[in-house]
Amino acid sequence: MSQIAITPKPPYYCVVFSSEMSASVEGYAEMAQTMVELAERQDGFLGMESAREQLGITVSYWRSLADIKAWKLNAEHIEAQRLGHEKWYAAFTLRIAKVERDYSFNGRSN
Amino acid sequence: MSQIAITPKPPYYCVVFSSEMSASVEGYAEMAQTMVELAERQDGFLGMESAREQLGITVSYWRSLADIKAWKLNAEHIEAQRLGHEKWYAAFTLRIAKVERDYSFNGRSN
Repeated sequence: MSQIAITPKPPYYCVVFSSEMSASVEGYAEMAQTMVELAERQDGFLGMESAREQLGITVSYWRSLADIKAWKLNAEHIEAQRLGHEKWYAAFTLRIAKVERDYSFNGRSN
Repeated sequence: MSQIAITPKPPYYCVVFSSEMSASVEGYAEMAQTMVELAERQDGFLGMESAREQLGITVSYWRSLADIKAWKLNAEHIEAQRLGHEKWYAAFTLRIAKVERDYSFNGRSN
């Protein structure tokens, strides 16, 4: 989660999930970790990146819209979504986008 | 930067910039703030979201690919990009994507 995702050549899809937490964070960290592990086992999953300050941003990468839809409908994920709405998130926006081009720079060896 | 961006109905574009900092952060915070203010004055700019832990994620939203290209070629931005390569970033990946659908939830009033 804390590294830049290595993704294939575009096109592929991303889900940008931007969220503000509510005051109720009980159970959130465990569920978030479970969802990462579950997503990694989903067909078409390409990677995930996440960072949180006041705002949290999680970007997951997928092979196709059909793979994103299958992940949305995963039973355990549906339960996490329900708890997200009811308990954990004060607000969120989720955006589904088609990655058309990308560019990577790695200067670590400099 | 620290709030969920209010964006128009899709389609629109986003630039997902995922980065790991180098050890040289001198001048970075000031330049980052300058670039936010400059982007806000660019034609076609729709909003920006940002969060950093070990990984930093900044997502900017734009009306069109042409607007993104104009921002890329802005003279002050070019200088910031040069310093980013040379000094501030250990690694980054930039992805340009077309937002096809979005969904927002606001439970703050609950």
